[in-house]
Amino acid sequence: MEFQNYFPIWNKLTPVQQNQILGSLVIRKAEKGTVIHNGSMDCTGLLLVKSGQLRAYILSEEGREITIYRLFERDMCLFSASCMMRSIQFDITIAAEKDTDLWIIPVEVYQSIMAESAPLANYTNEIMASRFSDVMWLIEQIMWKSLDRRIAAFLLEEASIEGTDTLKITHEIMANHLGSPREVITRMLKYFQNEGMVRLSRGTIAITDAEKLEEVCEA
Amino acid sequence: MEFQNYFPIWNKLTPVQQNQILGSLVIRKAEKGTVIHNGSMDCTGLLLVKSGQLRAYILSEEGREITIYRLFERDMCLFSASCMMRSIQFDITIAAEKDTDLWIIPVEVYQSIMAESAPLANYTNEIMASRFSDVMWLIEQIMWKSLDRRIAAFLLEEASIEGTDTLKITHEIMANHLGSPREVITRMLKYFQNEGMVRLSRGTIAITDAEKLEEVCEA
Repeated sequence: MEFQNYFPIWNKLTPVQQNQILGSLVIRKAEKGTVIHNGSMDCTGLLLVKSGQLRAYILSEEGREITIYRLFERDMCLFSASCMMRSIQFDITIAAEKDTDLWIIPVEVYQSIMAESAPLANYTNEIMASRFSDVMWLIEQIMWKSLDRRIAAFLLEEASIEGTDTLKITHEIMANHLGSPREVITRMLKYFQNEGMVRLSRGTIAITDAEKLEEVCEA
Repeated sequence: MEFQNYFPIWNKLTPVQQNQILGSLVIRKAEKGTVIHNGSMDCTGLLLVKSGQLRAYILSEEGREITIYRLFERDMCLFSASCMMRSIQFDITIAAEKDTDLWIIPVEVYQSIMAESAPLANYTNEIMASRFSDVMWLIEQIMWKSLDRRIAAFLLEEASIEGTDTLKITHEIMANHLGSPREVITRMLKYFQNEGMVRLSRGTIAITDAEKLEEVCEA
C-alpha cells in the first residue's frame, strides 16, 4: 500500500490513528469527466489524488461555471468533506479532468482523528490556507485583470500542465474555467489568432507565439 | 481581564498555554480609519476584536480596493498573522471602520501553542473555513450578480449593521467596498433615487424603500 507516501504527516500519527485511516480508505478510479463530488448534495469524504487531475468549480443558478482550483498528484481536497466543519458554508463541485486514481478518507474517521491530533489539524490548516491563496488569486484576476490577460494566462498555464503547445480544448470548456460566456471567449481567441499568437482549429488551440502571449499577461 | 470571555476555546487550553497568551497580549485602540495591518509589509499578529469594526480588503496595483470580509465584536483575524503559515500567499490590508478596541496575540506565541494543541488548531481551522465561506460568497457575487443587485445588497447590509436607514457613507467608500469605479456607483445610486428607493445628499444615503431594494437583490 502506497498511501503512506502520499500523506505528508503520516509519521506524526499514532499507530492507532494510522490503522483507523488504512482500515477505512476507499480506492476509487474516476474516468475523465466524472463528477466526484456534487455541491451540498453529499459529503463525499476527503480526496487524495494518487494520479490524474481534478477540477473544483462553482455553478451559477443559470448553469455558468468558474474554476476555483485544480488538484494534482498528492493534493488533498477538504471541501468534498464540507460536513466536517460547520463553518464551510458553500458548495463546490469536483470533477475529474483526466482519468484519476484517488483515495477517499471517510469524514468521520478524519474528523475524529483531527479532533485529538494537533499535527493533523495543523496539516488541515495548511491545506485550507493554500486553497485560500488560490481563491484570493482568483479574485484578483477577476477584479483587476481584463479578459485578454486572463485568457493568455490560462493558455500558458494549460501548456505548462500538459507539456505541449497544442491544446486539445474547446471554447466551451475555456468559458467554464474562466466564468465567461462562450461567445466572448471565441471573439477573444479570434483576435489572438489575428495577432499571430494562436492557431485555432476544431477542438484545438495551438500556441504559435508564447512570448507575445506572455506580454499580454504582463501588460 | 476579559480576554478569556472573548476566546471560545479558552477552557480547552492548559494553564501554561493560558498564561503564555495572557502574558504576551497587547491591547490596542484603533481610531476609525487607522490601517492596522498592511499587506505583506508586516506580520502584525492575530487580532481579536473587543468592540468596534474592522475591514479586510485587497488593493490593485492601481490602488482600487475591494472588501473581502469584515470583523465585528468577538471575531478573530488570522490573515494579519500570515507569516504563521507558509501556505498563506496573499496580502490583505486591515483597517478600522469604527473606533475599535482589540487584542493582538503575538504570532510566535499563537503558533507555538497551535503546534501542540489540537483544540487551538481546530479552532483556527473553523475560523479559516468561515472566512473561506465569506470569500466564496464574494466570488459568487462578483461573477453572477449584476452591480445593481450588489449595491442593493450592500445598502441593506449597511442598514442592518448600523441599525439605521440613513447611512453616512460616500460613493467613494462604496466603490472601495465593491471594487467598482466611483462614477459607476454614483450612476447606479442616481438610478435608485429616480426609482424612489433611496434619497441622496452630501455624505448620506437614506433608504426610502427597503422593500423595493430587496426586490432588486432577489431579482
